[in-house]
Amino acid sequence: MRTELIQRMQELRDLAALVELAQWDQDTYMPKKGAEGRGAALGTLKSLYHQRLVDPYLGDWLDAADAQGFDEEAMVRVLRRERAQATRVPERLVRALAEAGTAGLSAWKRARDEQRVATFAPALEAIVRLRREYADALGSGTERYDALLDVYEPGMRSARLAPVFAELQTVLVPLVQAIEARPPPVDVFGGKVWADAAQWAFTMELLPAVGFDLDAGRQDRSVHPFSSGQSVGDVRLTTRVSLDTPLPAIFGTLHEAGHGLFEQGFAPKDFRTVLAQSPSLGLHESQSRLWENVVGRSLPFWKHHLPRLRRHFPSELAGVDAETFWKAVNRVQRTFIRVEADEVTYNLHVILRFEIERALLRGDLDVKDVEAAWNDKTKVLLGLTVQRPTDGVLQDVHWAWGDFGYFPTYTLGNLYGASLFSAAQRALPSLWADVERGDCGVLLRWLRASVHHAGYRWSTEALMERVTGRGLVVEDFASYVRQKYSVLYRL
Amino acid sequence: MRTELIQRMQELRDLAALVELAQWDQDTYMPKKGAEGRGAALGTLKSLYHQRLVDPYLGDWLDAADAQGFDEEAMVRVLRRERAQATRVPERLVRALAEAGTAGLSAWKRARDEQRVATFAPALEAIVRLRREYADALGSGTERYDALLDVYEPGMRSARLAPVFAELQTVLVPLVQAIEARPPPVDVFGGKVWADAAQWAFTMELLPAVGFDLDAGRQDRSVHPFSSGQSVGDVRLTTRVSLDTPLPAIFGTLHEAGHGLFEQGFAPKDFRTVLAQSPSLGLHESQSRLWENVVGRSLPFWKHHLPRLRRHFPSELAGVDAETFWKAVNRVQRTFIRVEADEVTYNLHVILRFEIERALLRGDLDVKDVEAAWNDKTKVLLGLTVQRPTDGVLQDVHWAWGDFGYFPTYTLGNLYGASLFSAAQRALPSLWADVERGDCGVLLRWLRASVHHAGYRWSTEALMERVTGRGLVVEDFASYVRQKYSVLYRL
Repeated sequence: MRTELIQRMQELRDLAALVELAQWDQDTYMPKKGAEGRGAALGTLKSLYHQRLVDPYLGDWLDAADAQGFDEEAMVRVLRRERAQATRVPERLVRALAEAGTAGLSAWKRARDEQRVATFAPALEAIVRLRREYADALGSGTERYDALLDVYEPGMRSARLAPVFAELQTVLVPLVQAIEARPPPVDVFGGKVWADAAQWAFTMELLPAVGFDLDAGRQDRSVHPFSSGQSVGDVRLTTRVSLDTPLPAIFGTLHEAGHGLFEQGFAPKDFRTVLAQSPSLGLHESQSRLWENVVGRSLPFWKHHLPRLRRHFPSELAGVDAETFWKAVNRVQRTFIRVEADEVTYNLHVILRFEIERALLRGDLDVKDVEAAWNDKTKVLLGLTVQRPTDGVLQDVHWAWGDFGYFPTYTLGNLYGASLFSAAQRALPSLWADVERGDCGVLLRWLRASVHHAGYRWSTEALMERVTGRGLVVEDFASYVRQKYSVLYRL
Repeated sequence: MRTELIQRMQELRDLAALVELAQWDQDTYMPKKGAEGRGAALGTLKSLYHQRLVDPYLGDWLDAADAQGFDEEAMVRVLRRERAQATRVPERLVRALAEAGTAGLSAWKRARDEQRVATFAPALEAIVRLRREYADALGSGTERYDALLDVYEPGMRSARLAPVFAELQTVLVPLVQAIEARPPPVDVFGGKVWADAAQWAFTMELLPAVGFDLDAGRQDRSVHPFSSGQSVGDVRLTTRVSLDTPLPAIFGTLHEAGHGLFEQGFAPKDFRTVLAQSPSLGLHESQSRLWENVVGRSLPFWKHHLPRLRRHFPSELAGVDAETFWKAVNRVQRTFIRVEADEVTYNLHVILRFEIERALLRGDLDVKDVEAAWNDKTKVLLGLTVQRPTDGVLQDVHWAWGDFGYFPTYTLGNLYGASLFSAAQRALPSLWADVERGDCGVLLRWLRASVHHAGYRWSTEALMERVTGRGLVVEDFASYVRQKYSVLYRL
C-alpha cells in the first residue's frame, strides 16, 4: 500500500481517537461551562476528519491502492466504504439532520412533559423526511430502510432481518406467556439501601475478574453508561450507581466490560488501522450481551461471585444463596420500558421498533399514526395496554436525535452473542466449570482468538460463519433462553 | 476581517484546546498503556495545527487582513507572530530538537543515578548546538539568546533583563544574609501526619474562596501540578498531596488557582480568538505568584483561613495562631533546590540559570564548564557549596528537554506580580481588610478589569505600563520582600 494512504488512514484513526476522548470527557469530567468550547472543538475535529476523508487525493490513493495481501485489501475495502458514505451525503443534508436532531430533542422533551405525542409529531415528521433523503443519498439497491440499517450493520438488509425477527417472535411470545404464568422469583433487592462505595468497589473487582485490563482502561461514572475505545491500550467504561438496587451498577459494568474487552482485544498489529474496529454494532453488542447476560446472569458466575459481593453487603445479602440470587437477577416481566427489560422480553421491544421504522421509511405508515401503531404492537408483542406516551412511543430518545436503523443491532447482539457462546461451549467443554471457579480467562482467550483479533477483517456474517459455522440464526438464542428459563421458572 | 481568516483562527484555537485536553488527560486519568496511542494522536493533532498555521493561504489572508479596529489589529499581529515563528523553523530542526529532548531526558536520568554530569554532557552539547541553530532560524536582531527568550516572553531581550536581574541580586543577597542571621520561625508542620482527604477537602474550599469557578473548571491530582485552559469555561488545575506536610497541596493549589483565575478571566467576547491568551509566560506567572505568595502567604489571608484549615486538622494545629502559622509558611532558607525555594531565594536560582543559559548560547561557556560555573554561582548567589550534581546542575529537567529561555519567566512573574499587587493596593485602600474578611473578590475584580480581560491585546510591558504606570521594575518586589521579611524576621 502507498505510504500516503497508510499515513492518511493513521491520521484518521488518530482523529477518531481524539473524538472518543473529547466525548468521553464531555460525559464524565468536563465542567458544565465547558460545553460551548467543547462543542466548537468537537465541531472542528469532526469537520477536519470529514475533510481528510472526502479529500479527492484519498480517492486517488484508494483507486491506486495496490494492496498486498488480505489485511491490506480489507483496509482498502473498509476505507472505501467509509469514504463512499461520506461523499454521498451532501453537507447541506448533514447540517439539516443535525439541526433537526436538536429541534427533535427539544420537542421530544416538551412532548414528554405534556404526555402528548402531537407535540413531537412535527419534529418527527421533519426527521423522517430528512432520513428518507439521507437513505436515498446513501442508496441501498434494495429498500430505503436498508441504507440506514447498513450504516450500523454493514450488509444487513430488511428482507434478511424480517424473517429472523418473525421467527424470534414465535419463540418469545409463548415463552414469555409461559413464564408469566409462573410465580416470580423472590426479590432480594427491594426495601434496602445499597451503599454507593460498596457497589463501586465491587464493580472494580468485577472488571479484572472478567479480564478487563485496568492498565489499558478505566471505569468512571456517568449518567448514561457507555464504553469508549481510543486504542487497545486505552478503553474507558462508565457505570452508574443506584442506592435502591445494585443491579444497574453490576450488570451495567458487565455490559460495558463486554464492549471494553472487545476494544482491548483488537490485534496489536492493527494499531492505527481501520481493522481495529468492530465490523458492526451488532457484533459489538454481542460481546456486551454475552458478558452481561449469558455469563453475568448465569448460576456458575454467581456461585463464584456472590460470596465476594456479600463481603460488601453482609447484612443486605444475609441468607441469600447463589440460586436465589441468580433467579432474582433473571426475573422476566412484561414491562413498557425497553431499557428496563430483561433479556427475553427485550427483543420484543426491538421487533416493535424495527417494524415501525421500516414502515415509516417505506411510507407505509404516517407519523400521525405512529402512536396507534406503537400501542397496537405493544398489545400484540407484550400483551400490555399503553396508558401514557412516556410508557410508549415517547420513551426512547433515538428518533428524537434522528437515529433510525439503530435498534435492530441490540437484538442482533443477543442473537450473535448466543451463537458465539454456543460455539465457545462446543470448543471448551469445561467452560461453565471454569466460570464457576472464577476463571473467565478461558472464554476470553477463545473470544480473543475467534472474534476480537479479527477486528474488521470480515463482515459480521462472514465472521459468524467462520466461527460458528452459520451466519445469523435464531436457534442458538432460542435454545439458550428456553433452556435457561425452563430451569429457572420450572416450566 | 475576512471570514476565512476568522474561521482559520477559530479552528487553530479549537485544535489548541484539544491539545490541552489530551495533555491534561495524559497527566491525570489516562491508563498507562494508552501512552502509545496518545503519542500518535497528539502527534497528528500538533502536525495538523502546524499545517494549518503555515498554510500559504493563511499568509495571504493575513497580508490582506483589512483589520477593523484595535481588537482585529491585535489578532492579526498575534497570528502573524505565531505563523512567522512556525514558518522560520525547518521541520527537520523541529524533529531533531524533539529527538534530542528524548535522548536528553534519558541521559539526564542516567546522569542523576550516577551523580555524574559527564554522562549528561554529550546530550546537553547536542541540545545547545540545536538550540543555537533554532535561535538563528528564529532570528532576534540582537543576541542569540533573545530569540529563545522571545518565544516565552515576547519582546524580552537579554540586554533588558541583565540589569534588572543584577539590581535584584543586589537587593536579595544582603536581605537573605540578614534573614539567615535571625532565628528561624517555629516549625508547625514537621513530625505530624497530614491526612490526604482533609488536605484535599481544604484545597477544594480554597478554590472558590479565591474566586475560582468550579462550574468552569476543576481540580484533579497529578505528580507534577499544572494548570490547563481550554476555554474560559473549562480551566483545569492539578495538585499533589504529601502526607508529611500540607504545604505543597495548599500553596500548589493557590499557585495553580492563580493561573486558572487568569484563564477564566479572559473576555468572553474573545472566545476562540488568539486574544484569549496571556501575552507572555511571565505575565501568566505573575498571577500564580501573586495569589500563591503575595496573597496566599500573607497574615490577613491566614487570619481568615487558619480557623478553616484547623477544622480539618484540629489536633495538628492545636495552639497554632495565625501569626505563628504565617511565619512558618514564610521561612526563608538558602537551599540547593529551586523548586523547594521560598519566594526570596527563588529568584537567585533563576539569576544563576539565566547567566549560564545566556553564556552557553553566546558561546562564552562550554558545556564541559557548566558544572563548575553552576557551583561557583551557587557560592556567590546562595553562599552554598554544591556537594553532588543532583543538588546542582542536574536538578532541573528543563535543559534535558531542550528548553532554554524559560527560567527567567519565573522571576519576571515575581516582579510583575509584586508591581501589579502594589498598583491594586493603591487602587483598593481596603484590600488587606477585604482579604482578612475572606473577601478576595475585590482584588479579583480589579485583576480581571486590569489584566485578565486584556488577554493578548497588548504586550506584557505595554500592559504593565497601562496598569502600573511603569514596565518591568525591581522596586515593587524589592519593597514587598523588604517590608514583609523585616516584620516577619524582625530585621
